Amino acid sequence: MTGKLTAQPGKREELADILLQAAEGMKDNADCELYLVNVSEDDPDAIWVMELWRSAEAHTNSLKDPAAIALIQQARPLIAAIEPVKLRPVGGKGF
Amino acid sequence: MTGKLTAQPGKREELADILLQAAEGMKDNADCELYLVNVSEDDPDAIWVMELWRSAEAHTNSLKDPAAIALIQQARPLIAAIEPVKLRPVGGKGF
Repeated sequence: MTGKLTAQPGKREELADILLQAAEGMKDNADCELYLVNVSEDDPDAIWVMELWRSAEAHTNSLKDPAAIALIQQARPLIAAIEPVKLRPVGGKGF
Repeated sequence: MTGKLTAQPGKREELADILLQAAEGMKDNADCELYLVNVSEDDPDAIWVMELWRSAEAHTNSLKDPAAIALIQQARPLIAAIEPVKLRPVGGKGF
């Protein structure tokens, strides 16, 4: 799962910090193989998150975790737009 | 490093196979932390490659490898467009 998040003007850093906290929360989740937070070098408001999950179900379950719910509520007001990039990983190093 | 490659019509699978061979060649390269090949679910010609390197220099050096050069020459005629997505990873799981 890959997505481009556009932060409210001036809020990218704050949003990125919340996403990094979410990634930290995934460190012990074996179903989450990748949760990479990137900032765009072209767009000062854009953050790209790249996630790799063992299953769609594992991802859905992760969103029920109270800590994740709290972080999502914290992040929501900082987000101006979310553009999912619908990709299907087919292999490679880190897959 | 992230990029969207548009294959020539009908050539996506062949191009993805070449990229997977390139990823295979990175398995023993400790400087390459991620080389993920994804296909777009929206665009039948699009492939997204996500790479994570310890340094820009490590990536540049990898392109001098004869096997990589051969794969690039094989891939080139199959590629209609390359759109780099300039990102800077800031952290997360897999970083």
